[in-house]
Amino acid sequence: MQHEMPLRSLVKAVTWQVAGVVLLGLSTAYLAGGSADPVAPVALLTLVAFVAYYVHERLWEQVRFGRASSQAQPRPFVLWFTGLPCSGKSTLAERFVAELRADGIQVEHLDGDAVRGVLPSKGFSKEDRNNHVRQMGFIASRLEANGVNVVASFVSPYRESRDFSRTLCNNFFEIWISTPVEECERRDVKGMYKKARAGEMANFTGIDDPYEAPEKAEVVMDTTHRSIEDCLSEVRQYLRERGYTVSAAK
Amino acid sequence: MQHEMPLRSLVKAVTWQVAGVVLLGLSTAYLAGGSADPVAPVALLTLVAFVAYYVHERLWEQVRFGRASSQAQPRPFVLWFTGLPCSGKSTLAERFVAELRADGIQVEHLDGDAVRGVLPSKGFSKEDRNNHVRQMGFIASRLEANGVNVVASFVSPYRESRDFSRTLCNNFFEIWISTPVEECERRDVKGMYKKARAGEMANFTGIDDPYEAPEKAEVVMDTTHRSIEDCLSEVRQYLRERGYTVSAAK
Repeated sequence: MQHEMPLRSLVKAVTWQVAGVVLLGLSTAYLAGGSADPVAPVALLTLVAFVAYYVHERLWEQVRFGRASSQAQPRPFVLWFTGLPCSGKSTLAERFVAELRADGIQVEHLDGDAVRGVLPSKGFSKEDRNNHVRQMGFIASRLEANGVNVVASFVSPYRESRDFSRTLCNNFFEIWISTPVEECERRDVKGMYKKARAGEMANFTGIDDPYEAPEKAEVVMDTTHRSIEDCLSEVRQYLRERGYTVSAAK
Repeated sequence: MQHEMPLRSLVKAVTWQVAGVVLLGLSTAYLAGGSADPVAPVALLTLVAFVAYYVHERLWEQVRFGRASSQAQPRPFVLWFTGLPCSGKSTLAERFVAELRADGIQVEHLDGDAVRGVLPSKGFSKEDRNNHVRQMGFIASRLEANGVNVVASFVSPYRESRDFSRTLCNNFFEIWISTPVEECERRDVKGMYKKARAGEMANFTGIDDPYEAPEKAEVVMDTTHRSIEDCLSEVRQYLRERGYTVSAAK
């Protein structure tokens, strides 16, 4: 969105007034020639005013003065959801991204599963996971640096690479979805916990791979007994307190 | 930049005309009360017109109708420089990025050395290089999708991952800096060819690692006997032919 500052409107009013006086003078001088038709002067003045207004607008369209490009947000943010598989990260992130977009806010969603779909070569060892998260932090930082908000949802189990991503970004907000493993396993949306328990899936965070809980997450939420809307309103509230304009509860 | 379409100006002219008729009527009715001072009517009408114009502008400022957000560029592009070490990629890319920024065009520069500085864990095997280039292609595509132009400069020696990056992006232009290895080695800006020849550096593209020349690069340029300015003007020309507004030769 771009706005016109009041000063621009004022200056336009002045130029319009000046143009009006000149045109009124010219029209009057022309009409002074005389006309028998009493409607003609009114029609002429109306037409002159109309065309003049249009031309005045088109000329001002070329002028930058008094225009302010203002994004809806004070500065881009990186909202980083971390937590166990099935803790609710991606669901919350997706819903929040949809909300932001509905409000016309530009945002990129970086989601663990989606990224691994495009770049399938990444493994699941500690080093692989750390490298992966570092790279995602790098992407987030480049988007943020170019004015694009980022919502990231990655298990991102290691503190080291989460903190590394934080250092790359300017407004990094870590949202730890702290839903306990018992609840995540109960949900087991894609049957992955089952596979991990059966030994068909190695390096599964929460089962045979560690999750290092954040020590300084900006928001911590256990989604066990909470509705999606309730969780989202907490995220909204957090951003609002930091000066971001996000929708009121829907 | 944001533009106002002619239709917006026309509709504003109509609302202004309507407001003008109403205000003229009201002012005339008010003045019909009579005034001894011959200057008063003119002063009043002028003031009413001035305030009315300002209010009309401020009200329209709230209206989106007829506004078109138009970037300086028709659509974001990804300009991908590939070639041997010391072929001239980074120099050209840096200079071109500086030019674009001087023109107020938003652009992100992804450079091989710079990225490896931030993410040092990446190796130099064929698989490592391919993964690295794929990831860089992914970053470029996310930036492009969010309206940010990208200039990338990577040795990116393998066709497979360059082509993969191309498929992720919408406007991917491959610039093959085809300077022959003899010339690159003669330049050897950072003494890397010397090290590679001495066996102190393995997997060095052009010496003991292959470079797969592009088969469908949009621009091919051998920088051997050409000035930087001459090379840049070819890049500018290429983009200009595709509808991008880039500076005239400087």
